[in-house]
Amino acid sequence: MTPPEVLEAFQFALDASEAVRGTTSPNPPVGAVILDASGQVAGVGATAPPGGPHAEVRALAAAGDRARGGTAVVTLEPCNHTGRTGPCARALVDAGIASVYYSVSDPNPIAGGGADTLRAAGVTVHPGLGADAVIHGPLRAWLHRARTGRPHVTWKYAATLDGRSAAQDGTSQWISGPESRARVHDERSRLDAIVVGTGTVLTDDPWLTARLPDGQLAPHQPLRVVVGLREIPTSARVLDDAAPTLVLRTRDIGEVLDALTDHPDVLIEGGPRLAGAFLAARSVDRVQAYLAPVVLGAGTTAVQDAGVHTVTEALRFRRERVETVGADVLLTLVPDRDQ
Amino acid sequence: MTPPEVLEAFQFALDASEAVRGTTSPNPPVGAVILDASGQVAGVGATAPPGGPHAEVRALAAAGDRARGGTAVVTLEPCNHTGRTGPCARALVDAGIASVYYSVSDPNPIAGGGADTLRAAGVTVHPGLGADAVIHGPLRAWLHRARTGRPHVTWKYAATLDGRSAAQDGTSQWISGPESRARVHDERSRLDAIVVGTGTVLTDDPWLTARLPDGQLAPHQPLRVVVGLREIPTSARVLDDAAPTLVLRTRDIGEVLDALTDHPDVLIEGGPRLAGAFLAARSVDRVQAYLAPVVLGAGTTAVQDAGVHTVTEALRFRRERVETVGADVLLTLVPDRDQ
Repeated sequence: MTPPEVLEAFQFALDASEAVRGTTSPNPPVGAVILDASGQVAGVGATAPPGGPHAEVRALAAAGDRARGGTAVVTLEPCNHTGRTGPCARALVDAGIASVYYSVSDPNPIAGGGADTLRAAGVTVHPGLGADAVIHGPLRAWLHRARTGRPHVTWKYAATLDGRSAAQDGTSQWISGPESRARVHDERSRLDAIVVGTGTVLTDDPWLTARLPDGQLAPHQPLRVVVGLREIPTSARVLDDAAPTLVLRTRDIGEVLDALTDHPDVLIEGGPRLAGAFLAARSVDRVQAYLAPVVLGAGTTAVQDAGVHTVTEALRFRRERVETVGADVLLTLVPDRDQ
Repeated sequence: MTPPEVLEAFQFALDASEAVRGTTSPNPPVGAVILDASGQVAGVGATAPPGGPHAEVRALAAAGDRARGGTAVVTLEPCNHTGRTGPCARALVDAGIASVYYSVSDPNPIAGGGADTLRAAGVTVHPGLGADAVIHGPLRAWLHRARTGRPHVTWKYAATLDGRSAAQDGTSQWISGPESRARVHDERSRLDAIVVGTGTVLTDDPWLTARLPDGQLAPHQPLRVVVGLREIPTSARVLDDAAPTLVLRTRDIGEVLDALTDHPDVLIEGGPRLAGAFLAARSVDRVQAYLAPVVLGAGTTAVQDAGVHTVTEALRFRRERVETVGADVLLTLVPDRDQ
């Protein structure tokens, strides 16, 4: 039985981790909580931007002397690796931590092994706490990249009940509701990169920035990536100085993924041909479908040319979650690898 | 406070009503329960097929002498009208019923007024019990027809995440899962009519029958209706003798609805142009969207030509329900009349 104060600390650690998602790459967005010997929260920390301290070190700094004889609750196995910062496993031992709970083992052969270091120093180690919430939550993209060497790709789209992303005359504002649009902006601010096709730049001229509800730019902006062979004008909004932008003159999805290796969490925002190319290349790891309670009956469909000619070749997914977001329904799905 | 035995009786009455839905038209599918003077269930009844007894009469027959001093719980105001059967309000009075709970008032000026008859005879009357469940449930179509003079039209479709109802080569078996297909067959067996376009008959040659899980024909079959100007071959399956079929050589949705006045509960099953025509005519009262976790990226879309050219003309709906049915998601929506 995990003690209740540890379960509560895990929730704080998970929240701290989620709060820094998108700001730590290529490091993982980890959350850590130090409980003192009596089980009171003594310090909370999350991974700083690259070059800064890791979550455990920040939580230990907040806890100070209260860490001695205490418990650390961390969303990822404490690292064992002297990089730009010292190894966290060592820091926990030096601070006198008596037991460590962590959610997920570090798959990285260089940074991994922290649990062994802790055990060797006499620290009690409990792996696996809240692993599911972490694997499907803040560390999802980072773990995917660590496991596969490739970024985690989410394809997000908004469409009508009949699968349209724009009306016959090209208008698309607004198909999805204000709650969905706010959520998309919030999500953008936690990403490493947003990818669109040149067609979307030429048709919609989007900024692709993450904005706060008041319209201001969010503090963290993902890399904007434009993919395709068509020319885009130098006046395109996506080339403004609100965020960095990468233009990739290719239609090869493998080349796009290679260029984004240091960006674990990538979002494909459209248009239909780019989505189709990623789907055809089996390079979509998650789908977020915002379905609006609207029928158009004509106009651009959300996907084109996914390489499917007959129904037995259909790309099949598995539902991970169904939510309502204002008037819209948000389906989150992952590829059905058993198909 | 409604007594608990009455609330329980209402649930039985609602179930009895739902069980005969589709078999009673043009009469409403009503459910009735008689509680004896001590609050025990003495009889349950539902509307018989046209010409047979109403729900209250059947429940009274089951209760016999135990009805005296008891309570009737009915999903619709007891009728006041001597048609092929005697008035139910009178039958309740004659049986010595002391109090009557009912869900919904009878909007029919000829049959209505039963509550007044009951009150005049000294019966205590409680209207409105479980009205929402009845209005959105078994009496939905009948009440719509009573109020508007037109059938209640549900447009049902199955589509992929990108709004396709068939792949590029025309194949569509199976986009939705087995649970969804079983549910569609169950729903068919409770309808008055199923409408398809000639295009669907020519392309898919469907039977449009309601089948039980073992493949046998369900006891009740809806009227099959084929709409459109194209010729259909006499060998079409929809013309077999498993159920009656009506062929309407028109594209005018008003003419179709006029022809179906005696069929309160109508389902539009496709194809995309027929759905578009009903939508453009603002003649869809409910949408049932079975969305499969599948992407095709090409092929027939679920709707064509709904009369919408720009996004401000989009047909907007309000979500009534979100359910999961196997791997699929079923959205039930109604027109957003406030748009």
